[in-house]
Amino acid sequence: MIPAAALAELSSLLGDRLSTTRSVCDQHGRDESPYPAMPPDAVAFADSTDEVARIVQVCARHRVPVIPYGAGSSIEGHLLAIRGGLSLDLSRMTRIIAIDADDLTATVEAGVTREALNDALRHSGLFFPIDPGANASLGGMSATRASGTNAVRYGTMRENVLALTVVTAAGKVIHTGTRARKSSAGYDLTRAFVGSEGTLGVMTEITVRLHPQPMAVSAAVATFDSVADAVNTVIRTIQYGIPVARVEFMDIQAVRAVNAYSKLSLREAPTLLFEFHGSEAGVAEQAETVQAIAHEFGGTDFEWASRQEDRSRLWAARHKAYFASLQLQPGSTCVTTDVCVPISRLAECVTATCADIDASGILATVLGHVGDGNFHVLLLVDPADPQSRERAEAVNARIVRRALDMDGTCTGEHGVGLHKMDFMRAEHGEDALDMMRALKRAFDPLNLMNPGKIVTLD
Amino acid sequence: MIPAAALAELSSLLGDRLSTTRSVCDQHGRDESPYPAMPPDAVAFADSTDEVARIVQVCARHRVPVIPYGAGSSIEGHLLAIRGGLSLDLSRMTRIIAIDADDLTATVEAGVTREALNDALRHSGLFFPIDPGANASLGGMSATRASGTNAVRYGTMRENVLALTVVTAAGKVIHTGTRARKSSAGYDLTRAFVGSEGTLGVMTEITVRLHPQPMAVSAAVATFDSVADAVNTVIRTIQYGIPVARVEFMDIQAVRAVNAYSKLSLREAPTLLFEFHGSEAGVAEQAETVQAIAHEFGGTDFEWASRQEDRSRLWAARHKAYFASLQLQPGSTCVTTDVCVPISRLAECVTATCADIDASGILATVLGHVGDGNFHVLLLVDPADPQSRERAEAVNARIVRRALDMDGTCTGEHGVGLHKMDFMRAEHGEDALDMMRALKRAFDPLNLMNPGKIVTLD
Repeated sequence: MIPAAALAELSSLLGDRLSTTRSVCDQHGRDESPYPAMPPDAVAFADSTDEVARIVQVCARHRVPVIPYGAGSSIEGHLLAIRGGLSLDLSRMTRIIAIDADDLTATVEAGVTREALNDALRHSGLFFPIDPGANASLGGMSATRASGTNAVRYGTMRENVLALTVVTAAGKVIHTGTRARKSSAGYDLTRAFVGSEGTLGVMTEITVRLHPQPMAVSAAVATFDSVADAVNTVIRTIQYGIPVARVEFMDIQAVRAVNAYSKLSLREAPTLLFEFHGSEAGVAEQAETVQAIAHEFGGTDFEWASRQEDRSRLWAARHKAYFASLQLQPGSTCVTTDVCVPISRLAECVTATCADIDASGILATVLGHVGDGNFHVLLLVDPADPQSRERAEAVNARIVRRALDMDGTCTGEHGVGLHKMDFMRAEHGEDALDMMRALKRAFDPLNLMNPGKIVTLD
Repeated sequence: MIPAAALAELSSLLGDRLSTTRSVCDQHGRDESPYPAMPPDAVAFADSTDEVARIVQVCARHRVPVIPYGAGSSIEGHLLAIRGGLSLDLSRMTRIIAIDADDLTATVEAGVTREALNDALRHSGLFFPIDPGANASLGGMSATRASGTNAVRYGTMRENVLALTVVTAAGKVIHTGTRARKSSAGYDLTRAFVGSEGTLGVMTEITVRLHPQPMAVSAAVATFDSVADAVNTVIRTIQYGIPVARVEFMDIQAVRAVNAYSKLSLREAPTLLFEFHGSEAGVAEQAETVQAIAHEFGGTDFEWASRQEDRSRLWAARHKAYFASLQLQPGSTCVTTDVCVPISRLAECVTATCADIDASGILATVLGHVGDGNFHVLLLVDPADPQSRERAEAVNARIVRRALDMDGTCTGEHGVGLHKMDFMRAEHGEDALDMMRALKRAFDPLNLMNPGKIVTLD
């Protein structure tokens, strides 16, 4: 419960932008994960960094937990108010502060979504490549260290956030980093906050790197006899240093789901989607090399989508694969896995995982940003059957164990939230976790910033 | 002074690998900066991570400062034992633990130098691109967040360190990160240690990303009528998204120095050195485009160095530019500046800096990793004349002020050490510095790890 005095202060600060309405709180107490909602006690809709600072100051004074909220599209339970408190909604902070085309940077408020940023960039010759499935906010994407289909070429939020404005747990406004492309000026506060999931402070403004729109783009689809053949094609492509812009894997079930949902007619087989960026000649050369590699591994149906509209349709379908998968069994929710392994172990990891899914009898799709060694299994769960979720979680635990044994990570891009906390000790070891706890205590001594996520202090 | 009991413990642990000899201590109390040496009380030569952990445990118990030491090639006073204590020399830790060519990663002990790593990679088809001027150790390069001439294409140590083994200030061994290319599994401990200059713990093993050796390489030299023309060529090249591998600027004095030192005959004019990596066709295309841009800005003498030996000679000369500059005035030392600015401000920044140097009357060379917006001024100083150093520091302070006003940083790649500490407040602001101090206290509560560097806690 938020003390009445705190609510009064917040209310006088925000007026009707503070809500304790049941429906608003419920909506802010969940994300796209299958966890049941745990609503906050109130929701504050902030308009500026300065206002965020004042809100955090009030909450610090009254010991009220603060959970930053962007687009609500996270999928690991990041947003659940497990200790009550205030959901701090930044979705009204949608100002694009600066587009510095000459420097290939943009500075935006945390509520700006990736699509809104790319809309604003449309005539600049530049684009922002990071594309998680949802139209997430830049604040949320920074908080989860998000990536997506372009990361194999352009990096993740780790590489693409240059600087931040952050409201600290004490309600102070700090600026981390500058617009210089590199710096050795002390501790990397920017990267301390990127991936911190709202547990160290509130990111209110984000400066990101932009990239020139490629002169030429081409895309291709290839199908394979086996998962291993598809994945080995990717491994070889990366090892050759071919600067492929995107390379996505779909297993048979995923292809089925995407075909049905997006009205495509892809052949139902282990499939790779490629995209190449560069000059006309460069793109042609990359594509030729990759086609040759695919043929080596028995790849067939190497089909080109050279028209912009065909490519858009293909990638739109890929981005909707999450929702498409849910529709394989209408009414279901899903447990999503997110391991990432060294590329040399990927075929082995995916193949063993597919066998594990088959044995479990759970309906699931496998999708992957395989150029990074990252893939997702979407395990469909019947919300009315608790055992169905348990079975899916057991598969997830085995997948994580397998990835850790291969020197991989339990989460490539979704973050820890609540869902991956049980794996943190196995992945990092107790002493490294202690360093994370020390960092959390140093930046948030009252344990009020999204408490109980990533690490617990109790 | 190190307490006798601590020395006895260290001595029984290390035998003759513990030294209190005057010459050994003197050698470990300085780096390549112009600071007079401040020797530690003793030097420990460690052989393994486990031994480092034991040494740090002894030092923690007896409250002895620990200063990690690699190749001794830092240039900002990082290694000076300003509070005495133990220099922890890792240069014997030269084991290459693993080269995982299939994953494009290598894991090495901290004392392995960048040249030793590349020697080990010679037949793998891979290379490690980060190349500061000196043959630094990977531990030291991680500690300063180093970069070099290839960073414009391949990134800095920030992007190329995947995982670390660290001995914490409490003497525990932790592993940060995995060999997966990306991860969202909690706080980014790896990036907390990269750039921490030995102040948060001792990095003993480093896992880095490797890159495929390019199929084709070409290099070119172009000269310009003015500094601005040269720099504007670079700005346009970056803005066009041309994936140039290296682009280095030298002013007239730098060309003179390099010609004399390395027996070259480059035309004495503002000069750019380019290198292109890619396929045969890709390299040719990049080079053509850049040549066209250079011509737009009046660039002449666009000369190709297509033979491997010519290229090696050219880049060897560039790498020796620091020593070449010192030889312009034998017996001098030098104050080195290291600002980095957003690329759109680079021509303005370099031009104003050149005017400032001219007005100061100090003999200086200007060299730059200009594709990153980073450049160095090597201001020659007469060690016998204290005022000469003061004048040089005054120029440096003005250069830093100019860079910060342009939303740049005081150090692009050399680190803070002692020399840049006075600029930290102006660059980050007091509240962000407080967060850095909080991090330092959290990871090193006794303030024993290279104390007095980056931030002070007193």
